[in-house]
Amino acid sequence: MSNATLFFDLPSPFAMKRGGALVGARLAYETWGTLDATRGNAIFILTGLSPSAHAAKNADDASPGWWEEMLGPGKPIDTNRWFVVCVNSLGSCKGSTGPASIDPATGEAYRLTFPELTLEDIGNTAHELMRGLGIARLACLVGNSMGGMSALGWLIHHPGSVRAHISISTAPQAQPFAIAIRSLQREAIRLDPNWNNGAYDDEKYPETGMSIARKLGVITYRSAMEWVGRFARIRLDSETRTDDDPFGVEFQVESYLAGHARRFVRSFDPNCYLYLSRASDWFDIGEYAHGDVDAALARIDVERALVIGVSTDILFPLSQQQHIAEGLAAGGAKVDFVPLDSPQGHDAFLVDIPRFGAAIAAFLATL
Amino acid sequence: MSNATLFFDLPSPFAMKRGGALVGARLAYETWGTLDATRGNAIFILTGLSPSAHAAKNADDASPGWWEEMLGPGKPIDTNRWFVVCVNSLGSCKGSTGPASIDPATGEAYRLTFPELTLEDIGNTAHELMRGLGIARLACLVGNSMGGMSALGWLIHHPGSVRAHISISTAPQAQPFAIAIRSLQREAIRLDPNWNNGAYDDEKYPETGMSIARKLGVITYRSAMEWVGRFARIRLDSETRTDDDPFGVEFQVESYLAGHARRFVRSFDPNCYLYLSRASDWFDIGEYAHGDVDAALARIDVERALVIGVSTDILFPLSQQQHIAEGLAAGGAKVDFVPLDSPQGHDAFLVDIPRFGAAIAAFLATL
Repeated sequence: MSNATLFFDLPSPFAMKRGGALVGARLAYETWGTLDATRGNAIFILTGLSPSAHAAKNADDASPGWWEEMLGPGKPIDTNRWFVVCVNSLGSCKGSTGPASIDPATGEAYRLTFPELTLEDIGNTAHELMRGLGIARLACLVGNSMGGMSALGWLIHHPGSVRAHISISTAPQAQPFAIAIRSLQREAIRLDPNWNNGAYDDEKYPETGMSIARKLGVITYRSAMEWVGRFARIRLDSETRTDDDPFGVEFQVESYLAGHARRFVRSFDPNCYLYLSRASDWFDIGEYAHGDVDAALARIDVERALVIGVSTDILFPLSQQQHIAEGLAAGGAKVDFVPLDSPQGHDAFLVDIPRFGAAIAAFLATL
Repeated sequence: MSNATLFFDLPSPFAMKRGGALVGARLAYETWGTLDATRGNAIFILTGLSPSAHAAKNADDASPGWWEEMLGPGKPIDTNRWFVVCVNSLGSCKGSTGPASIDPATGEAYRLTFPELTLEDIGNTAHELMRGLGIARLACLVGNSMGGMSALGWLIHHPGSVRAHISISTAPQAQPFAIAIRSLQREAIRLDPNWNNGAYDDEKYPETGMSIARKLGVITYRSAMEWVGRFARIRLDSETRTDDDPFGVEFQVESYLAGHARRFVRSFDPNCYLYLSRASDWFDIGEYAHGDVDAALARIDVERALVIGVSTDILFPLSQQQHIAEGLAAGGAKVDFVPLDSPQGHDAFLVDIPRFGAAIAAFLATL
């Protein structure tokens, strides 16, 4: 956890969408900038599956955050002007209550007894935080990847609570390719004998399953085009190949995936991963209009929206961003749809700050 | 094995590209149609990773083959005109010698003592079969997917042995996205404790690893676009959901993948899978021209070529087919490049027979 982490106690019990309620649950969050006197300059950021609330460095934690170049004084989301809040998702293991947290009723970690989690629960709890901070209406709600779906969940449940919306590389409903990928990631974890139906510990930990899940994630977060330029067919030199395993790591791209997996495996709780991943599969804004995604999007009430997508994103394809843009416009919002040619695929919003930052800065300047 | 399977004894010992030699090795193959008096009407088909030589039904085996609608009397590859041979790849477990075969030197299965396998070995052994059948020059060499790379290996090693070439959804060199996918498939198998460094048996068999590998394969063989139309967000009904596992199969797309995995897991040898998969990663026609793929392709000596690719193929992208087409043309071949909009991704050549059959029939009619 960052030194800058703040905590918000949710109303208790907090009712979950699919049933059950959380007692004594809380959200972790961080803030940047200052809430102005009218409380009208607040921006909330809802994140993808794995990030914490530490989106950028701040007074209490100088370490770089996951969106460091996007957020800060003079940056595209300019904290000299905006009061920015990044929320760690309910169900995560980065400070907010989730399957790895202690259930006050038992004194033990929830693990698989945590209630079924939906992205709407993530949106609803973030909305509670907004109200808890004394804010009636956001200047802007930003959501990327899974956070973009959580944001749509917030918007459909809380009309009038958001003036402008920035939707980045997300989906109005989970489609079968993304479901297939996530299902296979969950299966790799669940088939690891050390997962033990959720009852692992540090000694017996589903490292293999988490590693496969993460590698598959990274493969789908980037793009084939980027990797041709970045890795081509470069091999590790014989000194870097530490083993003589005939099927061991040989190409640089394999070593890149291994590095990503190594950094992730012990830093994210497997049960939390399963809950958040399944919640993404369940998300379908169409639920709110008898299965009609267009009609549901058109029910969303924001004045302005910026919808950004990337042509090389295979997990959240550009066609889904266009769908969101058209749906919000049909609902009366003034929408800027910005399709980008970033080569980095789904992860472009994290790394292609020149393109994404320009689009976001230009949009925020009009608010 | 099909009743129609024929066997060809390779010259013994047969030297392998990366070292070592096979003693008493053989290829499994099937034939359709009749070799004409000039021995000038032969077509060879080299397959993808998993198919057997049973491409279509024939006199000795009426069961449908893996390319049933493509091959037969009056079909796009018309066996009334052509003498067609489909070769089971060296290293496979469908009749040709591979890691699951008995090593005559020990009386035990090779397993990981099988020499390192390359796609050039597959091409070279198929070329031996051609000569063994008394054929000096093929009318046409057809290769799809992995078989397309094996065919390029054949062509670079045996100039003058092929008049026309049909290259389908393949690659002049393995690129990092495909390497990453295959590396992860191999890792899933190797991390399965039952793999046991290749020494599994029917009782302790790496079913989990093979299942994950196959599911990942199927995900990359098809396309997101096809699945939106085919599966959308359709859920299994409660009767079909046989368990109450909270993370069990819920969506139709998950059940589809499970079915594919179930049919594959015990029907393909895991060590053979590892060898063929690694051979695909190693393939790089550029090796034959100091790393210059264009120059290597231009060295290939065929009169005519048909190069087909599919816009929705994420594993062997259309850009790679175009690369092959341009390279062969630079070498003096008259090339038809046929990019198709089939929605089925890499697997389109197996299922989109209307589009693929038309292109292949039109090309063969000009020979």
